[in-house]
Amino acid sequence: MGVLNSLQVDLGARSYPIEIGQGLLDGLGDGLKPLLKGRQMAVLTTETVAPLYLERAQASLTAAGFDVTPIILPDGETSKSWQALNQVFDVLIGARFERSSTVVALGGGVIGDLSGFAAASLLRGVNFVQVPTTLLSQVDSSVGGKTGINHPLGKNLIGAFYQPKKVTIDIDTLRTLPRRELLAGLAEVIKYGIIWDAELFARLERDLDAFLALEPTVVAEVIHRCCAIKAEVVSADEREAGQRALLNLGHTFGHAIENLAGYGEILHGEAVAIGMVMAADLSHWLKLCPGNDVARIRELVERAGLPLHAPKHAVEAYMDAMSRDKKVEAGVMRFVLMRGIGSAMISSDVDAAVTRQVIEAYAVA
Amino acid sequence: MGVLNSLQVDLGARSYPIEIGQGLLDGLGDGLKPLLKGRQMAVLTTETVAPLYLERAQASLTAAGFDVTPIILPDGETSKSWQALNQVFDVLIGARFERSSTVVALGGGVIGDLSGFAAASLLRGVNFVQVPTTLLSQVDSSVGGKTGINHPLGKNLIGAFYQPKKVTIDIDTLRTLPRRELLAGLAEVIKYGIIWDAELFARLERDLDAFLALEPTVVAEVIHRCCAIKAEVVSADEREAGQRALLNLGHTFGHAIENLAGYGEILHGEAVAIGMVMAADLSHWLKLCPGNDVARIRELVERAGLPLHAPKHAVEAYMDAMSRDKKVEAGVMRFVLMRGIGSAMISSDVDAAVTRQVIEAYAVA
Repeated sequence: MGVLNSLQVDLGARSYPIEIGQGLLDGLGDGLKPLLKGRQMAVLTTETVAPLYLERAQASLTAAGFDVTPIILPDGETSKSWQALNQVFDVLIGARFERSSTVVALGGGVIGDLSGFAAASLLRGVNFVQVPTTLLSQVDSSVGGKTGINHPLGKNLIGAFYQPKKVTIDIDTLRTLPRRELLAGLAEVIKYGIIWDAELFARLERDLDAFLALEPTVVAEVIHRCCAIKAEVVSADEREAGQRALLNLGHTFGHAIENLAGYGEILHGEAVAIGMVMAADLSHWLKLCPGNDVARIRELVERAGLPLHAPKHAVEAYMDAMSRDKKVEAGVMRFVLMRGIGSAMISSDVDAAVTRQVIEAYAVA
Repeated sequence: MGVLNSLQVDLGARSYPIEIGQGLLDGLGDGLKPLLKGRQMAVLTTETVAPLYLERAQASLTAAGFDVTPIILPDGETSKSWQALNQVFDVLIGARFERSSTVVALGGGVIGDLSGFAAASLLRGVNFVQVPTTLLSQVDSSVGGKTGINHPLGKNLIGAFYQPKKVTIDIDTLRTLPRRELLAGLAEVIKYGIIWDAELFARLERDLDAFLALEPTVVAEVIHRCCAIKAEVVSADEREAGQRALLNLGHTFGHAIENLAGYGEILHGEAVAIGMVMAADLSHWLKLCPGNDVARIRELVERAGLPLHAPKHAVEAYMDAMSRDKKVEAGVMRFVLMRGIGSAMISSDVDAAVTRQVIEAYAVA
């Protein structure tokens, strides 16, 4: 029990700690007390997470002297909307939030993104704390400061870069996570291995079963490594001008897949898994990445029980969806490609004909 | 004609220039070209400003190679709403805005605040340029990075700190500004004298008539001095923790006055003028500020044709509105008080009974 691993995300005045361990929900209040001046706090969570963890989180926060307003939202991407954000503002303003007040996100990426944007925008910025309860949010969205909501024309089109005061990752929460979502999160874990760390990738090949059985040491170490990689990339490049873009491996294809499938039909991590395999194949066709590495990636994705094919839609529908991505610059699509496992690169110079071939080969599900 | 004065707001990587002069609208495009990578641009303006200046601005921007989408919004505070912001997002996303695209605010504070928040939030941040056309926005809201929209429960409750790439102040636009709005802007000019610069205050006492006759040298110099003061304060304190709060002289009372009068009934500058006189009297009653300075402030405000009294409402209605202000911390109201003309201070320790007396004395209009 307690903290197993921890790290500091180094962003100057906006630096913050990440703690990873077991049973951390019960120590939430005491851990936050020295970091926060104001007592007023809202805990944003979902209808699924609330019955599992809200009471424990709230008890700990209240015992530490915080004045907690819980806000329970429906599950799913629909909560990353104007309407939900407005409801949150109404509650926070009604509760007389001040700049020293705090928004706590207790849940997955949707809750984290929505809460973070609410915290960033209310009074031009109140305190923000992340308590991610899904593997995906633990290794990805809770680190790096990206917050936001969706627009009918695309995901995450409205938002802010806004850093939390602290991230508390209680890996016990993974025990109640549906297996499909655990696997979706694993896709992002695999991503870190591909873009940055061949050793992490090899460890996943070796320890996949232990990880999926939620063996605490393995899970905490792997999450720690993912957070450290993301923190390293983000510290060097907070506003996504350069290196940070490597984290988008599989996301250019992935966002188009999510967009065409309709939000919620396919999980983000599943779309990224497919997108990574597509990016690996694209890299191979462009003679950047050895075929053996593509095979290892495909095999690990498959062993992890993740999908390998995208929903069947016209190639041009994919091209169109991809051209609306935030990462498009001056009309040019940028891809994250790989030279091999552990080494990625950005390219704005991918032949559209090859891109279309890859889409054709994968959009068959 | 041309640039009469200029300065640089020093905020490290987010530094930007302010240019003040005559006929600057016609050089807008050429001036922005070297600063902006993307060609895509939207010019946000109002139904009043559009027929006066949109064509000239657009011609200059188009000639410089920008691809301009004009967005014309209704006048007034109602455009600082969710609904208006959403309409703006719909247009920008529909026009396929990218991170290198630019939002230009052509108008007063409402357009500046709304445009800035739209620029800050779209794709988590696109370029932003301010072309303020009212005196108030030229000396106040266009410098400092505060952006945002209103909420039914209060002004500017939702927003972001977001810096423009450039501010272009064409003082010729003041020739079409209604006199009531010119005077409202003058209230903020007087404020800079009171909180920071006794010499500026004395100059206003001396040159009031020349300023109101829009004598270019006087106007450009006074605006330059106001921007320089604001830039100095903001550079030292971007996120409003300390010194920046001095800029809020008259605003604790002023926001409550605006709130109770109903948005749009009383101009922001008028509310600030009344609030400054109230704050001066409060400072005198608290034995901080000599009576002679209060008299000079009241006299200049009166000579400028600005109101000296607040709308008649119950004292508790004012206290309640003031307690909802963003600047409230841990339930404690903070006031900007003055030791005399040119020297201000923050106090969280004002006897509520004295505050009530001041309200009682002024809320009689």
